[in-house]
Amino acid sequence: MSAQEIYDQLTEHIRKTGYLKSTMALLEWDQQTQLPNAGHAYRAEQIMSLAGLIHQREVDPQVGQWLNELAESDLANDRHSITGSTIHEVKRQFEKKAKLPQSLVESLAKATSLGQRIWVESRKADDFKKFAPQLKEIFRLKREEADAIGHDNCRYDVLLDDFEPGAKTSEIEATLQNLRAELVPLVKAISESSAEIPVEIVQREFPIDIQRELGIAAAQAIGFDFERGRLDVTAHPFCTTLGPKDIRITTRYNKNHFNGAFFGTLHEAGHGIYEQGLDVEQFGLPSGTYCSLGIHESQSRLWENLVGRSWGFWKYFYPQAQQKYSSLSNVSIEQFYAAINHSAPSLIRVEADEATYDLHIIIRFELEKALLDDELSVDDLPGAWNEKYQQYLGVQPDSDARGCMQDVHWSAGLVGYFPTYSLGNICASQFFAHADSELGNLEERFEQGEFASLKHWLNTHIHALGSRYRSSELVEKVVGQPLNHEKLVDHLTTKFGKIYLLSA
Amino acid sequence: MSAQEIYDQLTEHIRKTGYLKSTMALLEWDQQTQLPNAGHAYRAEQIMSLAGLIHQREVDPQVGQWLNELAESDLANDRHSITGSTIHEVKRQFEKKAKLPQSLVESLAKATSLGQRIWVESRKADDFKKFAPQLKEIFRLKREEADAIGHDNCRYDVLLDDFEPGAKTSEIEATLQNLRAELVPLVKAISESSAEIPVEIVQREFPIDIQRELGIAAAQAIGFDFERGRLDVTAHPFCTTLGPKDIRITTRYNKNHFNGAFFGTLHEAGHGIYEQGLDVEQFGLPSGTYCSLGIHESQSRLWENLVGRSWGFWKYFYPQAQQKYSSLSNVSIEQFYAAINHSAPSLIRVEADEATYDLHIIIRFELEKALLDDELSVDDLPGAWNEKYQQYLGVQPDSDARGCMQDVHWSAGLVGYFPTYSLGNICASQFFAHADSELGNLEERFEQGEFASLKHWLNTHIHALGSRYRSSELVEKVVGQPLNHEKLVDHLTTKFGKIYLLSA
Repeated sequence: MSAQEIYDQLTEHIRKTGYLKSTMALLEWDQQTQLPNAGHAYRAEQIMSLAGLIHQREVDPQVGQWLNELAESDLANDRHSITGSTIHEVKRQFEKKAKLPQSLVESLAKATSLGQRIWVESRKADDFKKFAPQLKEIFRLKREEADAIGHDNCRYDVLLDDFEPGAKTSEIEATLQNLRAELVPLVKAISESSAEIPVEIVQREFPIDIQRELGIAAAQAIGFDFERGRLDVTAHPFCTTLGPKDIRITTRYNKNHFNGAFFGTLHEAGHGIYEQGLDVEQFGLPSGTYCSLGIHESQSRLWENLVGRSWGFWKYFYPQAQQKYSSLSNVSIEQFYAAINHSAPSLIRVEADEATYDLHIIIRFELEKALLDDELSVDDLPGAWNEKYQQYLGVQPDSDARGCMQDVHWSAGLVGYFPTYSLGNICASQFFAHADSELGNLEERFEQGEFASLKHWLNTHIHALGSRYRSSELVEKVVGQPLNHEKLVDHLTTKFGKIYLLSA
Repeated sequence: MSAQEIYDQLTEHIRKTGYLKSTMALLEWDQQTQLPNAGHAYRAEQIMSLAGLIHQREVDPQVGQWLNELAESDLANDRHSITGSTIHEVKRQFEKKAKLPQSLVESLAKATSLGQRIWVESRKADDFKKFAPQLKEIFRLKREEADAIGHDNCRYDVLLDDFEPGAKTSEIEATLQNLRAELVPLVKAISESSAEIPVEIVQREFPIDIQRELGIAAAQAIGFDFERGRLDVTAHPFCTTLGPKDIRITTRYNKNHFNGAFFGTLHEAGHGIYEQGLDVEQFGLPSGTYCSLGIHESQSRLWENLVGRSWGFWKYFYPQAQQKYSSLSNVSIEQFYAAINHSAPSLIRVEADEATYDLHIIIRFELEKALLDDELSVDDLPGAWNEKYQQYLGVQPDSDARGCMQDVHWSAGLVGYFPTYSLGNICASQFFAHADSELGNLEERFEQGEFASLKHWLNTHIHALGSRYRSSELVEKVVGQPLNHEKLVDHLTTKFGKIYLLSA
């Protein structure tokens, strides 16, 4: 068989696995949005059974053979070509999976399933001691996982690689340290500012049907295509891909808070625009799949914050909002803009504003790395957590439930995931600044309701490439510079400097 | 291996196939209710791929081996036991599938997929000549299918068996002929009656949100469990099972017609109550699966017509409806009852009333049997159709689109399906009459809003048995008599005799 024939067989195999994976996404989406109460037990069985079929296809030894032959062929020469990225990326994933003993896979599945249950109960009871043994077990297994796969004396590299392929902990760590050094004083200055922000404006009454209508209008305005997607309600918002032209986003509404659903919808629409911008012909293959979680988050944050919370966006959109909401009738755009951008140190990550958000992430990154490296024991986690919140944000958690037990991630075995949120913010600022310099003043375009050129720029330079480049390579390729925190700091310093009347 | 061990392996295999089949049901439900417009092409690929996996598992030679061994074992002795019905019914289906050459399966899939497309176009253009060649091809392939599976000189038996396992054409034919002989004069008498039915009452304005609310209230009242199900909107209403505790029904609303959505919801809820009443432990196995399409339809028709269109039901439910609809404020229950039960010969099956409905079915049964037996040529179908409508219902189709091209069934290869609708009506009347005699006056219970005893009776005598009995056996077991049209004729004669003031 020629290399091309082997390649065609491999990609056909992957496409067929893709049918099952996207069907799995439907089972899960339906579970969150539609499933009758009594249907959950059977749904779990359906999902487990399908996961088994998918796993079987993914570790099929035939795939390993094909990959070995293809790795030696010309098709693999250019790592950034469609064929090259397919061969290298599928091989990387295949080999990673093959190195994990079945017994460890099962132990992890069991420990994290149990872990999430215990986490829910412990958080509810604010009882960290109840959670601690299971968290220890999970970190023990994650160490075992990292060692089974192998590393150069940095276990965190292995786990990070699941979410940010090829990323190096040392580089991420340096970037986040630099960011922290800039953010801590900025956040302090904001919290000490004497500027009075009329934050109660966004806590007035916002009828849910109007929230939905305006959320859809805004998502459509920035380029989310409802012919290839939909918006539903879930307890925990997400974006999921059920097919190359079936990208679904969700949000949740609070009739007494404007920000949550509106910016949540823009955030998920940003994820959705990325998914809708991937190469349809390569669906399910690396060149038709998102690059990394960091890059994915860069797209959601870019549309949520750099566009959605910008002055230009509201110059365009505020008249619509003001017309629909009687609670805004006496509110000027200046007041509204300040209110949606109110910033203050807080305890809860998912409610944090643009300026403080990354400090929440940096705390988690530093702690999970210390836990993984056995430099911090699980028993000492609450103390270490509270200390860092005091140090970086100047606030003290009033409980572990609202402290180190607030996130599901660790209980679900997601270690190495948190930094991708900040990578997203950092990359978003780098991409946005570069698009701004290439396209001309973006903010003026937004004032006219013109978002298409930015979307087109992202489509061309980022989305169309799928994962043909590693995230670090992609950043360099797009902006001509490596990952760097400075654009994000510039953006936050300028924006919040104006709102909070800070001296430069 | 012991027979029990083999049996456990077989049922484990079937349960796992069940995960895929119920997942397929979700892919299809979502396609009808949720899928974004652009998602249909990929969804079709997902469905085809999953169908392939299901088929593979169903014709797995290992299954054949297990079945052969089990057929000789004690577990197979009692055809009506859980194990016996599983072995015999799975074996029957396995052998039927095994007899079909792969090439014929593919030809049929292609011809019916194309057939439905051509049907849509031909019906739209009212052009039977365009449809005829494809219809000929489909009937040719259905003959080939019947011959491949084998029969005692009656091809129709083989096709009927897909929907009504074990049923004999000769018996069905005799029953339908008897029914026809009674219905033709009854329908004539109704249409010649001088009674004036205020039919415009049900054509007033009925806001859709209230229709939905009352439909749910009625479905709940008769016993459809929304903890284990839901109600959505689709162009073509249906009931589908996505899991033992996840039964979904759909309807469609017309704000200027009361009957469609209300009785449609009760109809689908009737199907749903059957599915919710099956043995959860045996889900996916014959003893946890509906008996036949005829029995399924008996449950939907029973709740729709014998309960939902009864005087007792409306004595209970009319005050609610009248309170919600201002358009009913000046309408007496007597007028309303007459209006919802208005009967008149018409052209369109799916809009036909309780008294005329079965004549539409009988026409289709007689014609499809003649087509299959080559006693009628496809070219002569429109003429034969119109003649029968004139003869049985006294009306003449104004076009083939509203005549012999109105139903999708034949274009989709569903030959032998139509009689199950009338079997449903016949069985429903037999079951209802028997329940009435065992439980006491049901109509009085309905007046009190008491539907639980009837539902419980159906749960016990019909639903809980799954397909451990053939439909003909089930009827005999439940009512002590074979399938017989008389109870249905009694019901219609009495009911419409009163409404249309017919002399007995």
